[in-house]
Amino acid sequence: MSAMTNGDAREAIADMLADYGHLIDADKLEEWLNFFVEDSVYKIVPRENVVRGLPLSLMLCENKNMIRDRITSLRKANIYNIHVDRHVIGRPRIVGEADGIYSVEANYAVFQTDQDGMTRIFSVGQYVDKVIFLDDGPKFKEKVVVVDTAAVQTLLATPL
Amino acid sequence: MSAMTNGDAREAIADMLADYGHLIDADKLEEWLNFFVEDSVYKIVPRENVVRGLPLSLMLCENKNMIRDRITSLRKANIYNIHVDRHVIGRPRIVGEADGIYSVEANYAVFQTDQDGMTRIFSVGQYVDKVIFLDDGPKFKEKVVVVDTAAVQTLLATPL
Amino acid sequence: MSAMTNGDAREAIADMLADYGHLIDADKLEEWLNFFVEDSVYKIVPRENVVRGLPLSLMLCENKNMIRDRITSLRKANIYNIHVDRHVIGRPRIVGEADGIYSVEANYAVFQTDQDGMTRIFSVGQYVDKVIFLDDGPKFKEKVVVVDTAAVQTLLATPL
Repeated sequence: MSAMTNGDAREAIADMLADYGHLIDADKLEEWLNFFVEDSVYKIVPRENVVRGLPLSLMLCENKNMIRDRITSLRKANIYNIHVDRHVIGRPRIVGEADGIYSVEANYAVFQTDQDGMTRIFSVGQYVDKVIFLDDGPKFKEKVVVVDTAAVQTLLATPL
Repeated sequence: MSAMTNGDAREAIADMLADYGHLIDADKLEEWLNFFVEDSVYKIVPRENVVRGLPLSLMLCENKNMIRDRITSLRKANIYNIHVDRHVIGRPRIVGEADGIYSVEANYAVFQTDQDGMTRIFSVGQYVDKVIFLDDGPKFKEKVVVVDTAAVQTLLATPL
Repeated sequence: MSAMTNGDAREAIADMLADYGHLIDADKLEEWLNFFVEDSVYKIVPRENVVRGLPLSLMLCENKNMIRDRITSLRKANIYNIHVDRHVIGRPRIVGEADGIYSVEANYAVFQTDQDGMTRIFSVGQYVDKVIFLDDGPKFKEKVVVVDTAAVQTLLATPL
């Protein structure tokens, strides 16, 4: 991918993030998994912990198998179907690149609607990602979801 | 428009969606009409109905004249001026193209503020659009607003 | 910058707005100041006043020194640290260009989270900006934040 310009990379990453949100919203979590490489780290961390340097995560998957397991658990528990999600993601900021690994940040808001059609803010925060490019497009080497909103119970149930 | 690249199309469609939201927010609905061709379909559908394959719409305009009539009704009723809208629209996803018709999806959040300056989530959902390119730019051949939020009374009043 | 295309300008401005929101959210207000030139105007105006042609602002900085003073006051007062902000900004619309000054509009939503992790809509509205390009990138010649949400006390404390 050495011929890729910064602009091309940004567009491809922006497309990936839009698809990423769509696949969660559409409950296509098995497809959503395709955005992660085998040694991906996926974690959800409270903003306060990031600011204070605390290591505690709300969700910590240290490789793709752990992410897969979580999806399997969700399918069995079937809890998250009670609500539907809707992601609105801001423009990604490419904050660095080294050895083909792009450091990307993007703000997000996830709205959740219950079975009565009531919508609330479910989570707002920031994606702090490491992205690499494979032959079939950009993938997350690391995805850290820094959440402003404390909503621990439900956070544990679904990816953001 | 055969010389248009996918990137060019995406940018033009993203611009159109930003203008689309702006014209509703600014209450310039007569200008907003210009984004529709004469045989456009515009409808608002609850997400649940889409998932369950039910045909029922909250709003169904089968051609541009029906959209025009609705704007005229709104102008006479003057109900919607009590609130002001604000659209925040996510990056459009170009999910297909055939015979010059682009299939486009984009998440949106519409916030509504009342006369006391109180803002609430009015509607979140997804635009599912068919877009064609005319000499003066992209137009909707079909626009389906899939709403997560159930807010029937007010939904009937204004476009989303 | 005469060789810059409209597309290039739009991308650079979109990047600036994403950085702008990030720097406020990250409480890097001294860095955020760098987006303003010395004779910048920064103001926050209620939407109702704009519509009715009233001149009253919620915040009015007629040059960069006044913006600097406000940041200094904020640092001394230390009020705004009680909440954290999160910006989600829509795609900017380039609505005009003359003599190298770009007229830009963008919708925004700012979410605020308190120390208990509760998130609420803090402010939604529209940026109405004049942007010029210097050697180190785009800068605000004028930034008018038109707020839909009336939240005077807190609005006075922090930039949007």
